[in-house]
Amino acid sequence: MAYLQSMPKAETIKLREKHIGAACQLFFRSSPLKIVRGIAQFMYDETGERYLDCINNVAHVGHCHPHVVEAGRNQMSLISTNNRYLHDEMVILAERLVKTMPEPLSVCFFVNSGSEANDLALRLARIHTKNKDVITLDHAYHGHLTSMIDVSPYKFNLPGGPEKPEWVHVAPVPDVYRGKYTYPKDAKTEEELGHLYADEVGVLCQKAEDNHGGVCAFIAESLQSCGGQVIPPHGYLKKTYEYVRQAGGVCIADEVQVGFGRVGTHMWAFETQDVIPDIVTMGKPMGNGHPVAAVITTPEIAKSFTDTGVEYFNTYGGNPVSCAIANAVLDVIEEERLMDRAMRVGSHLLSRCEGLKHRHRLVGDVRGRGLFVGVELVTDREARTPATAEAKHIINRMREEKILISRDGPDSNVLKFKPPMVFSTQDADRVVDTLDRVLAELDGTKAPASRLTLEVRVTPIGEDSTNTESIRSNVQQAVKAN
Amino acid sequence: MAYLQSMPKAETIKLREKHIGAACQLFFRSSPLKIVRGIAQFMYDETGERYLDCINNVAHVGHCHPHVVEAGRNQMSLISTNNRYLHDEMVILAERLVKTMPEPLSVCFFVNSGSEANDLALRLARIHTKNKDVITLDHAYHGHLTSMIDVSPYKFNLPGGPEKPEWVHVAPVPDVYRGKYTYPKDAKTEEELGHLYADEVGVLCQKAEDNHGGVCAFIAESLQSCGGQVIPPHGYLKKTYEYVRQAGGVCIADEVQVGFGRVGTHMWAFETQDVIPDIVTMGKPMGNGHPVAAVITTPEIAKSFTDTGVEYFNTYGGNPVSCAIANAVLDVIEEERLMDRAMRVGSHLLSRCEGLKHRHRLVGDVRGRGLFVGVELVTDREARTPATAEAKHIINRMREEKILISRDGPDSNVLKFKPPMVFSTQDADRVVDTLDRVLAELDGTKAPASRLTLEVRVTPIGEDSTNTESIRSNVQQAVKAN
Repeated sequence: MAYLQSMPKAETIKLREKHIGAACQLFFRSSPLKIVRGIAQFMYDETGERYLDCINNVAHVGHCHPHVVEAGRNQMSLISTNNRYLHDEMVILAERLVKTMPEPLSVCFFVNSGSEANDLALRLARIHTKNKDVITLDHAYHGHLTSMIDVSPYKFNLPGGPEKPEWVHVAPVPDVYRGKYTYPKDAKTEEELGHLYADEVGVLCQKAEDNHGGVCAFIAESLQSCGGQVIPPHGYLKKTYEYVRQAGGVCIADEVQVGFGRVGTHMWAFETQDVIPDIVTMGKPMGNGHPVAAVITTPEIAKSFTDTGVEYFNTYGGNPVSCAIANAVLDVIEEERLMDRAMRVGSHLLSRCEGLKHRHRLVGDVRGRGLFVGVELVTDREARTPATAEAKHIINRMREEKILISRDGPDSNVLKFKPPMVFSTQDADRVVDTLDRVLAELDGTKAPASRLTLEVRVTPIGEDSTNTESIRSNVQQAVKAN
Repeated sequence: MAYLQSMPKAETIKLREKHIGAACQLFFRSSPLKIVRGIAQFMYDETGERYLDCINNVAHVGHCHPHVVEAGRNQMSLISTNNRYLHDEMVILAERLVKTMPEPLSVCFFVNSGSEANDLALRLARIHTKNKDVITLDHAYHGHLTSMIDVSPYKFNLPGGPEKPEWVHVAPVPDVYRGKYTYPKDAKTEEELGHLYADEVGVLCQKAEDNHGGVCAFIAESLQSCGGQVIPPHGYLKKTYEYVRQAGGVCIADEVQVGFGRVGTHMWAFETQDVIPDIVTMGKPMGNGHPVAAVITTPEIAKSFTDTGVEYFNTYGGNPVSCAIANAVLDVIEEERLMDRAMRVGSHLLSRCEGLKHRHRLVGDVRGRGLFVGVELVTDREARTPATAEAKHIINRMREEKILISRDGPDSNVLKFKPPMVFSTQDADRVVDTLDRVLAELDGTKAPASRLTLEVRVTPIGEDSTNTESIRSNVQQAVKAN
């Protein structure tokens, strides 16, 4: 693939060091990857080496999906101007997104990034409630903007991070494995744990009411990503939302990482908790890599914003190209039935990872919903001591095996899986088999000779045909393009 | 052009009212435009009606420029992933941008919008100086984010706007026509006026030092756009930067609206004031409509950021598609010599607008640099009373004549011109001739029968040939696309 680069890799690195802020970090810093091509769930480096991409939730419907590329190209050649003019792509996208939401979530604002979406969400909450205090979860990350770092312990808790503002209240992450309340120590049912964690938010609501007369917002990812692929216990959000609303606050569901059907059973992860937020934010997967994001709220909250008389103008927000691309992403999710796939392949990945837990002492916890899966590594199962160094080693070993995964969580000991939604059961098998071998190297156990497992799986005939089709079509597209 | 819409205009309006926040306002609210096609400096509505676009500075190299569209399509079909992987398009763009900057401005951060760029600029300034106080200009607009509204009197001064934070200090706009110090009342030379306005910043620096120990940043557009196309007097920024730096602050030049050669003589508008900022932000024209923006700063300031140990990760920032598109925009600026054109056509537009001043009592002031021109309307030339209603009437009348211009400034009485850079002298003539007629209707003076003027202009042979070529190529592109 040398024809896809303009200079040798060493020179790219040199130029990057010279002209790109070093705060922008590279994966595999000592030996970074130069990626020049992407097709479906695969990425290629400049030597033509192929990597299985298990972490790029942005390339939601698969890298360079031809339907999405075509939609972008077509609209780019027609018109891309701002939303002070009418355009069909924007209103069609708004209508389609609203149709995926429970009532009364029906008013959209289009922006360019998840950060911009969360910033606007908080702004709407402030204007609507007239309160300032925000409750956020520990280890949460909601964006790179100043206003978002304020509510992101993932950033402000770092040694060199800024101070937490006094109007921000940090609630414990509802992590039932290594959080404040865990199984089986503190409760017998998930519901009980959910309530214990929700009560923590209740206490903060009371504090905000006592100090400042009320709560502005509770903001949380419906499943916490950077915090370590955390799945909250049943009943958590329901009870939490009750406390927040009683204190005059609104509830913001950050679906930037986990939305658009990744959880398989539902389009939005908040639906798995049976709640209706007041504001929903979405981003990353929305444009399959194109900068587009959105905020969806209730007519009531939107009206409070309109009533200020201050115009909201976002230069690129809702431009026809961004909207055409987002519409094409929705097309693919529907037509390739990617939610079904997420459920099917995700369940398979999850159960195969569960299998690893029985075979390797390092695997402490396995959790997930659809194609959002976390494997938490511990050096001691009783004490649940984070296996941080081991996680790092595994990421690097997997890269040698041409598989890209990453790790996260406050102790960087949780392996993260959030692949493009065209991921297949074969891909899942390859990942878990490889992981099995790498874990075996670490714990001295011998890995199985064969990659086959004894689990009985009913795989629908032609399960990966869509995917094969999509790859074929991608390749044809690529050939045409070059 | 009905084939370019999915539904009748009335239905688009209905869906928009239902699903898009009403705070997102439309141009010509009572009878908005539905724009389905753009070619160079023209936009087309759904009936095929063609409008001359005098205000879309985002479509910098012309709507749907084929070279830019092609670059986007090509890169979209190859790979678009995040900047934790190496990619040539990003480092090439960084190097090219840095080459347009004076030393020591050499470190880039890529983001998705001008707002994100200004947010990061302030964050860099805070980290570097450890100060908080920010000095901004009255009527300034720096973005739609919470952090930017804090420093944008254009927003926080509105009746429904939020309060100005106590750490924000507002300096008077260096508007020599209707500002605090004007010609010929307060000074005889531009230099004198520049110093008078700079001294105002000096006073605020002193205040910030007394109250909080120092200044964080002075942020200003190099030419103020939303504030009413204001051209600061000579020497203003130079003296202002001295005061700010003495007080420990850094100087941020917001080039989001005015950068990329619009002023004709220079790539960046701050260069016309012979200063070197510490941080430069850029956006709108950078991607010709694609969401891409950047911050460029010194190695020293970038190092302060790196030293915090906090990673800066922006999901879409610096992705290969955004960078390929921005590189293509730079190609066109160079190859079509658009800076020369901005200077030539802009001078022509300016001198023809000057002509209007002698013919119509409403025209109080005409000012500009390159293709950034403002015509300030007043009902009384002595008192310089803003002609707000008249400006509104003119915008609507021009629209009837199929010419899109807008108005701005604190009294909404300044006609704004910031067209795509492929604007021609013929376009300028058409605009001014039409404006002449519309002004004549207002002041009762009869407009000239002929659209020809007596000014002698030396027009290089084939001056608009590039443009014609570009249109032809655009049309071919459009035909292929449909």
